[in-house]
Amino acid sequence: MESLGLDIGGANTKYATNTGKFGVIYHPLWKGDVFDVLVRISEEQPHEKVGVVMTGELADAFRSRSEGVLHIAKVCMEIFDDVLFLSVDGSLHCFGDLIKEPLKFAASNWVASAIFVGHHYQDCIFADMGSTTTDIIPIVGGVPVAGKTDLERLMNRELVYTGFLRTNVATIVSAVEINGKKIPLSKEYFATTGDVYSLLGLTGDIDYPWETADGRGKDIMSCAKRLARVVCSDLNEISLEDVVEIAHQIRDAQISEISEAMRVKADEWGVCKVVGAGVGEEILKDASAMAGLSFVSVSAKYGALSSVFPSYALSLMVD
Amino acid sequence: MESLGLDIGGANTKYATNTGKFGVIYHPLWKGDVFDVLVRISEEQPHEKVGVVMTGELADAFRSRSEGVLHIAKVCMEIFDDVLFLSVDGSLHCFGDLIKEPLKFAASNWVASAIFVGHHYQDCIFADMGSTTTDIIPIVGGVPVAGKTDLERLMNRELVYTGFLRTNVATIVSAVEINGKKIPLSKEYFATTGDVYSLLGLTGDIDYPWETADGRGKDIMSCAKRLARVVCSDLNEISLEDVVEIAHQIRDAQISEISEAMRVKADEWGVCKVVGAGVGEEILKDASAMAGLSFVSVSAKYGALSSVFPSYALSLMVD
Repeated sequence: MESLGLDIGGANTKYATNTGKFGVIYHPLWKGDVFDVLVRISEEQPHEKVGVVMTGELADAFRSRSEGVLHIAKVCMEIFDDVLFLSVDGSLHCFGDLIKEPLKFAASNWVASAIFVGHHYQDCIFADMGSTTTDIIPIVGGVPVAGKTDLERLMNRELVYTGFLRTNVATIVSAVEINGKKIPLSKEYFATTGDVYSLLGLTGDIDYPWETADGRGKDIMSCAKRLARVVCSDLNEISLEDVVEIAHQIRDAQISEISEAMRVKADEWGVCKVVGAGVGEEILKDASAMAGLSFVSVSAKYGALSSVFPSYALSLMVD
Repeated sequence: MESLGLDIGGANTKYATNTGKFGVIYHPLWKGDVFDVLVRISEEQPHEKVGVVMTGELADAFRSRSEGVLHIAKVCMEIFDDVLFLSVDGSLHCFGDLIKEPLKFAASNWVASAIFVGHHYQDCIFADMGSTTTDIIPIVGGVPVAGKTDLERLMNRELVYTGFLRTNVATIVSAVEINGKKIPLSKEYFATTGDVYSLLGLTGDIDYPWETADGRGKDIMSCAKRLARVVCSDLNEISLEDVVEIAHQIRDAQISEISEAMRVKADEWGVCKVVGAGVGEEILKDASAMAGLSFVSVSAKYGALSSVFPSYALSLMVD
């Protein structure tokens, strides 16, 4: 039977089938409804059973997370016939259950992947770095032991709200150093981590949908111009080498933050291995090394499915 | 003769006349052209001579700051007859001069105020906290001695790129403490300093134009909801008291950063007085106290003209 896993986020809707088809559709929920995107997926992708996880309920379009969960679930019910929703407890439920306790279905996308990884690695940290956030999920005896809400996970260091493409660089560092001189950053939305990793050549052949801060191109020079602007400059005022130096410093700061969270969780649970997935897997690898932890690459085994791992794991779960 | 000062920023266009009329029009340059706004001002406000300063050239709408300066200046020339542009050297120039060296007219709005203040206070720090940025301009012997570009001023601590309304709170603090527990923030655009200061009752009777992060209301509960979201929560998960506590911590961090910059400049130039203007004057007062510096309030003398001080100072200069 062909089954479909849907991971409905605030910026991207991701899908995968148990036969390994997958895709990512950039579709910010704060700009429009998810209905059309899901219709398109339902028409293009084979599916009998459908599983749904989400994080999109946090988007500004919804006044509360409950409202967001209920809305997203309702749209799924309108489009698909046989739908199950994964709760943060790790069990699959019908729409009737979801209505009773919608918050149990909020921020659920990491659960599918963590359960899947727990089948293969009894004791580890499952880490998934997406475009917007990074999950750091301890798995002990095959069971994910992370907090059940975003607030709990933020507090526990199991959700590091920093990502590979969408994160405003001014939220990562407050100053950079150029030629030995410290320069505080503009606290503006001028550049994102997508610019940093494109400029450093770390996005590889990823054709990941993301919106640049100024709506302009994703070519190297456009990325460099945006990064120059974080110190209120153009490329005639600081050099391309200076901008590359800025990019390195932002990358280092992001790796440090993730690495520190890994170290905290590894110490807490006595584990020494990270299993890493997501579009930012390479960053997780560096963060693991910094934390002195061994690293298992999900993409080495599953290829680009790593970048949509929650939806793939879910498609197998509802199969 | 009635003269008009225009301060064309990225988010707001401000104007004042030498007779004390003034206004602020929220008009983000990254969303549309400044033409209509200037036509409206030209029709509604008396003017013979017109002076222009700007910071809007940094907006995403322009590929470079030169392009921005030239575009904004050209629009001014189309609408007004007798226009002069203030350079960062402090002198007034015609359009023909501006074309030759456009970057001398970039980020020029603080120059008008600083020259004006220098006539009244020979040795001080002139500080102006607007919706987006804070200028910290040393004045020595009546003459402003700050750097001439945004990059220089960032480096020198004369431009602290943090403001009273528009600043993303996630660029100010990386974590907050609730009930003794540290919580790292979401690095998202969920709430701004406008939410912080509204919630703390510090925006007074200011009816200042600003756009909220989610496009919803500016009432206290809407501000509180946005601030709860910075730790991925609703108000049913953390209390209103917790959110007020978060707001205090963000305010304190912003005051500390500004205070530190004031202290650096005061030590460098041996001055001990701050002359404060702008919509965030109250914050500057607290920052001055923290830095051990005396404080002179521009609004105590000029009332609400304090919040459009560059355009008012400029209207007197071209008179």
